Amino acid sequence: MIRLFVANDLSADSLIGLDKDQSHYLANVMRVKAGEDVALFNGRDGEWLGRLDKVAKASVTLQVQSQSRPQTPEPDLWLLAAPIKKDCIDLVAEKATELGISALWPVFTHRTVMSRVNTDRLAANMVEAAEQCERLSVPEMREPTDLAKALAGWDAARPLVFLDESGGGAPITQALHSLQPGPLAVLTGPEGGFDDSERAMLARLPFAVPVSLGPRILRAETAAIAALSVVQALLGDWNRRPRAS
Amino acid sequence: MIRLFVANDLSADSLIGLDKDQSHYLANVMRVKAGEDVALFNGRDGEWLGRLDKVAKASVTLQVQSQSRPQTPEPDLWLLAAPIKKDCIDLVAEKATELGISALWPVFTHRTVMSRVNTDRLAANMVEAAEQCERLSVPEMREPTDLAKALAGWDAARPLVFLDESGGGAPITQALHSLQPGPLAVLTGPEGGFDDSERAMLARLPFAVPVSLGPRILRAETAAIAALSVVQALLGDWNRRPRAS
Repeated sequence: MIRLFVANDLSADSLIGLDKDQSHYLANVMRVKAGEDVALFNGRDGEWLGRLDKVAKASVTLQVQSQSRPQTPEPDLWLLAAPIKKDCIDLVAEKATELGISALWPVFTHRTVMSRVNTDRLAANMVEAAEQCERLSVPEMREPTDLAKALAGWDAARPLVFLDESGGGAPITQALHSLQPGPLAVLTGPEGGFDDSERAMLARLPFAVPVSLGPRILRAETAAIAALSVVQALLGDWNRRPRAS
Repeated sequence: MIRLFVANDLSADSLIGLDKDQSHYLANVMRVKAGEDVALFNGRDGEWLGRLDKVAKASVTLQVQSQSRPQTPEPDLWLLAAPIKKDCIDLVAEKATELGISALWPVFTHRTVMSRVNTDRLAANMVEAAEQCERLSVPEMREPTDLAKALAGWDAARPLVFLDESGGGAPITQALHSLQPGPLAVLTGPEGGFDDSERAMLARLPFAVPVSLGPRILRAETAAIAALSVVQALLGDWNRRPRAS
């Protein structure tokens, strides 16, 4: 079934008018017909069935039917990622959404080559990935900032698992062993990694946890996806089952 | 430093003539000059420095200098992956190489849509990924076959971690807890997953270990990358450090 992320509140019998892009997608790409059902979620009210009411090329309306899944708690897991080239950061946004992050926060580091980040495009990627992977939420797209600024106001109750590609960290399973499930963040560097001053700065932070992902040199996007997978398997919600079972 | 995978034996003072593609890459893309050094590996003899001897557009020769790293044992980890669409299987081949698989084996399942696999292209992707990630080997590209045939002659000493997207398996960390480091394989399905008869067949195999990757529905390529990451972190060589440290 088609799943759509909407901003509207969801409750029985409410009417929802989709925006132009979603209307176009449903009417012209998916070629839905009035009377068919789609699934709706907004990150707050769980998942609801919505019956297609009016289907026109640029204007589709839905009537909300019944709730199909309640909203359930999700991991509080941020990904702080140094911007990398377009295809790679798009991949990270998509895969990190599937893997269950709650927020994506681009952070500029000393060796970051990209000077700007298209957050609209990344947010759209995350919406699409969330719709496809049965999530009940879309990760928050945070405003890009410098790494130092992101760390300046850091809440020490949120450990920052930092991928130290120099091999200075403990193996990731060992490092995560000392952490409890709860708020967490993963920090990944740009193509060229962190520089020595950044590593030294991170080493002084009591909430930073340097980790190593083994003997091979992973590309930036691979390291992000791999670290999130291990974090979710060991500390996240991967002990929960998919809906079908 | 540029790293090249070669078929030749590597020993001090031997001369190596590169093939046309590698010569073109070095001479015209990387614009190397005679006298410069590149790193060479063949999966058997460790890593050696090779000094560029003659550099012509279609014919580059190298003189092997000294060994820079000995060959070290690598995980015996196969990925059996149902063919998926081109971009996605290319991504899996690249990322699985970085993550440290020893062999990629495409297996056709009931719901596999792709009717053939370009193993030459996948093998080339794996060579390129191995050159970039500091590996001393390239994963073996195994001949595509039907899943049933791959399982018919299976060595029961190699557990087969099978991604059961229906949620029938144990959470992956729990399932891996009962396994020891050693020969292992990960099996991932196509876009539509395994069908009931395949799941039933796998459930009867004493070496098959069904696992779950949590409540979200991961795309086929995401599931493969995520599972390999967790396997390598928990049972593989991620307790080893990169060369630089």
